[in-house]
Amino acid sequence: MAKTKTKPTAPERSSKRKSDAGEKIKALALSVVDQAERSADPSLDIPIRALSNVSFNPKTRYIEMGGSKQSRSFFNFGQAKRFMQTLLVASKCKELVDAGKTASIRQIYYMSKHTIKGTNEKTFDDQAESDPIIEDLEVSIDTLREELHVFASNRGNLAGPITLVDDGNTLDCTRMGSAGYAVPSIVEPDAVQFKKCEAKFILHVEKDTVWRRFHEDRFWDQHLCIISHGGGQPARGMRRLLHRMHHELKLPVYVLMDCDPWGYYIYSVIKQGSINLAYESRRMAVPDAKFIGVSSFDYERCGLTDDVKLDLDANDVKRAKQILSYPWFEGKKPWEKEIRKMISNGFKMEVEAMINKRLTYLTEEYVPMKLADRKQWLD
Amino acid sequence: MAKTKTKPTAPERSSKRKSDAGEKIKALALSVVDQAERSADPSLDIPIRALSNVSFNPKTRYIEMGGSKQSRSFFNFGQAKRFMQTLLVASKCKELVDAGKTASIRQIYYMSKHTIKGTNEKTFDDQAESDPIIEDLEVSIDTLREELHVFASNRGNLAGPITLVDDGNTLDCTRMGSAGYAVPSIVEPDAVQFKKCEAKFILHVEKDTVWRRFHEDRFWDQHLCIISHGGGQPARGMRRLLHRMHHELKLPVYVLMDCDPWGYYIYSVIKQGSINLAYESRRMAVPDAKFIGVSSFDYERCGLTDDVKLDLDANDVKRAKQILSYPWFEGKKPWEKEIRKMISNGFKMEVEAMINKRLTYLTEEYVPMKLADRKQWLD
Repeated sequence: MAKTKTKPTAPERSSKRKSDAGEKIKALALSVVDQAERSADPSLDIPIRALSNVSFNPKTRYIEMGGSKQSRSFFNFGQAKRFMQTLLVASKCKELVDAGKTASIRQIYYMSKHTIKGTNEKTFDDQAESDPIIEDLEVSIDTLREELHVFASNRGNLAGPITLVDDGNTLDCTRMGSAGYAVPSIVEPDAVQFKKCEAKFILHVEKDTVWRRFHEDRFWDQHLCIISHGGGQPARGMRRLLHRMHHELKLPVYVLMDCDPWGYYIYSVIKQGSINLAYESRRMAVPDAKFIGVSSFDYERCGLTDDVKLDLDANDVKRAKQILSYPWFEGKKPWEKEIRKMISNGFKMEVEAMINKRLTYLTEEYVPMKLADRKQWLD
Repeated sequence: MAKTKTKPTAPERSSKRKSDAGEKIKALALSVVDQAERSADPSLDIPIRALSNVSFNPKTRYIEMGGSKQSRSFFNFGQAKRFMQTLLVASKCKELVDAGKTASIRQIYYMSKHTIKGTNEKTFDDQAESDPIIEDLEVSIDTLREELHVFASNRGNLAGPITLVDDGNTLDCTRMGSAGYAVPSIVEPDAVQFKKCEAKFILHVEKDTVWRRFHEDRFWDQHLCIISHGGGQPARGMRRLLHRMHHELKLPVYVLMDCDPWGYYIYSVIKQGSINLAYESRRMAVPDAKFIGVSSFDYERCGLTDDVKLDLDANDVKRAKQILSYPWFEGKKPWEKEIRKMISNGFKMEVEAMINKRLTYLTEEYVPMKLADRKQWLD
């Protein structure tokens, strides 16, 4: 039976929204003021975003940050500039939140860049300096970048029986045109709400060209599901939306990727997060996501011809072995078999290669067969 | 006064549509059959897609192909394989058209790849072989790839007071959410129709992050216009849609790019087409498009600070000089001044750099100032 979730009222326009990130920034600033008034060296505790402070938690089943922190203080020659930069970026984010506006990380850079009075020194010389400061701020006050009103490029689309409210617009995702609903960068609950959902699951595919195959063949209608793609590795907005749909609407997430190390990797990012953004796994990862294909066993299983083979190169093999040794793959027998089989095959396969059989083989036979047989899923 | 265009009825779903490309393929095939029946060497005349056969036409004001053709015949050792490939791709496109389906160029490759009976030879070894064949077919029968039901990646979004019908869905582009209407790859008249338009012009910007600034600041509402972006160099779908909106709805197109050689180049592709796709300029170029910024004179004109400067490197200077020598820039005094000024400045500027002044400077002052003063436009 289909689930239906309803939210009664459409919210305010997102540009008018406030978040408690503003309050958190204020608290941060007040602690600095307080230290200064007590004539202490003003300092901030910044959690360490390095591999040394990141680990896979088998209980939560995602990659998360440890508790190590670093102090960044004003009266320290090596830290003073970054201390100033952190407060400067925080104040710009506060301005955004207060104004109900958003900005890209590049825009934050330009907003924050100026010559420090009485010097020839710039606050920032390069965006490579301001980007990590934004990440520092995110972890310091435990808030998502999107809650700080900072957006990334948007990438990814979806279609299917779900009605969303985005920016105050009610959007029926079965009727959004041939490219579907464009998933924005910011999909926090105050920006995007779920109004109604009749979908039973989400099929997330790697590329837009594959997605179009599913959309054109009305897969979402046949199977009462949401089809989404991330244009390769999904951007933050798409990951966050998958997370929200999975957790709030209880929709299972099935992932269909190319059979190559990159496909495995994208799946693993959707499932347990990435090392770089470990501090956001909690709000982005979908530990219950299943990999439904393309599996290295499908060559024989589906009776494919050598038309679909793409040679593995040395780098692919190296990458596959790295992935095998990730703690979140390690010890999972089915994954070991999957990856070792790809290596012994000596070839990769793309999702689109299934079309070699017939244009609609992918949508009418291959995926329905995969969905029907959970023994073929990889977890 | 605002223009309003109305089309009375919504069309059939695009997946049901037919195009006369099918008839053209049939005619091509019949001519081959006819030659074979007359015991002549079956051959096709393929227009030459090379720089030697491309020129800028000052009358039409776009880059177009000349009349040179090359014969490709079956009983010619060097041409037999490509002759076969051309007919094979043509037959796959005919299948798509007849089935009312579309496919990506990668999907065409997989659909067409097989072992030739009685040999170890593949019809195609690589997509690098099938892509040019698709282009050959386009020019041979004078049809757009999209009419052959072949799609590219989609990229680009728009928002503003226009109502489109896409895939049978009526879409009010003032209410498509925070990422706007996702422009699909295929926007031919049988796939996308204009139902109503109250916009007075189109503002096309380079990047999605800049576009979001305009969307969030409701620029399209303030100025009764369509705002669009192509995520860098616009994909075919966006270029074709700009062309159609310009010609069918009589909307002027204003282009806002970074002040760098790449920005000038993207503008020139929108305006007069590209050398690679010269055969499609007629259906994609917008020769009346105007470049409204960012101009190399804006540094002084707008009183910007050195925060916005990005150093020009040797490659930028080389590229700028190349652009200056393009026949469609050559002899245009204002463009010569613009590009020479950038070179003498020694720096580039991004659209987003305007935000250095203030978050809304770009949308509330800079662009309105540009739109109001046509003396600042570059043609």
